Amino acid sequence: MPYQFYYWPMIQGRGEIVRLALEEAGAEYVDVARQKNTTASEDSGQEDNRAAILEILQDRSQTRPPFAPPFLVDGDVMVAQAANILNYLAPKIGLAPASKADQLFAHQIQLTVTDFLMEVHDTHHPIANALYYEDQIEEAKKRAGNFIEHRISKHMGYYEQIIANNPSAFNWLIGETLTYPDLSLFQIVEGLRYAFPKAFAKLEGNYPHMTALHDAVATRPNTAAYLASERRIPFNSMGVFRHYPELDSES
Amino acid sequence: MPYQFYYWPMIQGRGEIVRLALEEAGAEYVDVARQKNTTASEDSGQEDNRAAILEILQDRSQTRPPFAPPFLVDGDVMVAQAANILNYLAPKIGLAPASKADQLFAHQIQLTVTDFLMEVHDTHHPIANALYYEDQIEEAKKRAGNFIEHRISKHMGYYEQIIANNPSAFNWLIGETLTYPDLSLFQIVEGLRYAFPKAFAKLEGNYPHMTALHDAVATRPNTAAYLASERRIPFNSMGVFRHYPELDSES
Repeated sequence: MPYQFYYWPMIQGRGEIVRLALEEAGAEYVDVARQKNTTASEDSGQEDNRAAILEILQDRSQTRPPFAPPFLVDGDVMVAQAANILNYLAPKIGLAPASKADQLFAHQIQLTVTDFLMEVHDTHHPIANALYYEDQIEEAKKRAGNFIEHRISKHMGYYEQIIANNPSAFNWLIGETLTYPDLSLFQIVEGLRYAFPKAFAKLEGNYPHMTALHDAVATRPNTAAYLASERRIPFNSMGVFRHYPELDSES
Repeated sequence: MPYQFYYWPMIQGRGEIVRLALEEAGAEYVDVARQKNTTASEDSGQEDNRAAILEILQDRSQTRPPFAPPFLVDGDVMVAQAANILNYLAPKIGLAPASKADQLFAHQIQLTVTDFLMEVHDTHHPIANALYYEDQIEEAKKRAGNFIEHRISKHMGYYEQIIANNPSAFNWLIGETLTYPDLSLFQIVEGLRYAFPKAFAKLEGNYPHMTALHDAVATRPNTAAYLASERRIPFNSMGVFRHYPELDSES
């Protein structure tokens, strides 16, 4: 039975690192909210099936509710939080490292990526997610400026060190083959190139292993096919990574 | 051999949810950075042993480096990220639920707590962790106002629902006994009471299961002994939960 994946249908967002894993593994899955709306009432005004997400979020009787999308349904199991989904899913679809110690480290890296994605999101929403960007643009300029100056290099340097120190020297994070956090690093490079093209162009050269890993992921047959398909939602001004020229800087 | 726990010696911070688990379980551990400084050079100016943390963070040769404290050393294993530490540690010290499905859900809750703690931190540091609070006080007022208005109830309501819907009806999150995320909910209630006494006094009554759970945790013998000891660092103006009267509000 295919995995049922639930995430907002109009953005990559926090769900994309799960989509990348499902796609790279060639796993059978349904991106539930991106299916045509067939069951919701006609006056919902949505052609997609995001109502399926809301139905679960609004069901107050659940004993194991998700706090927010993404979540994944695998038979009787529903699991939420992107990093938790990946930790659960990766061994089943061949994207986890073999040893327990490496699995623990893979999840540790993934949780650091989780923190970073929240930091990226808050560059454009430093005051409140519930407010429009336009209502916090001055604060966003300050936060993004600090993010560019300090946080990109802090995170990129960390991941770069791990790849560089991988004893297998195969340019992956862990061991000799791709594992799921590699896909998240690909997404970080893609996202930073999109959101902060000027700033990141000046920084990326400091992280050659990250660039090489990005390129190695992009050319994997399954991932390349996904990226070229309509299933890959383009970056836009609703997701985690957003391009606002006034938040980008060369200094 | 006792667990070696590494976290900043002057704050509860993100490490406290691990300390609470070690203490409640009665596990043998050393809070490494809180030991007297005996090995570092005399001119470090620190009486505690935070140098032990910096030594690990600055060692660029590590193959499985932590990004930041807290981290835990258990024999040959070093594990970082508070939620990852708890997921690793809890089954060993008797604080994990029994079934795999419940363990998955416990970690899912813990990752939601992780997100919440970052939101709490950013109420006083909405622009940058590297800047002083005083340099972002106006932005902090805006962020804290929104946090009080929207985010406390969003998170508290979620945890409340889980406790209320627990089929065992024992007022814990999962099953009939305390598990590690219960300790984090205790810490959230303690922290919100400290940081936002006026605002939280008006909100807490909406979450009777959370209050009951808090009280049940506080009276557990091991936890009560810990809270009364010098090992429990008081809340202060350096941790995640900080009390700045200008960020608190009754409305």
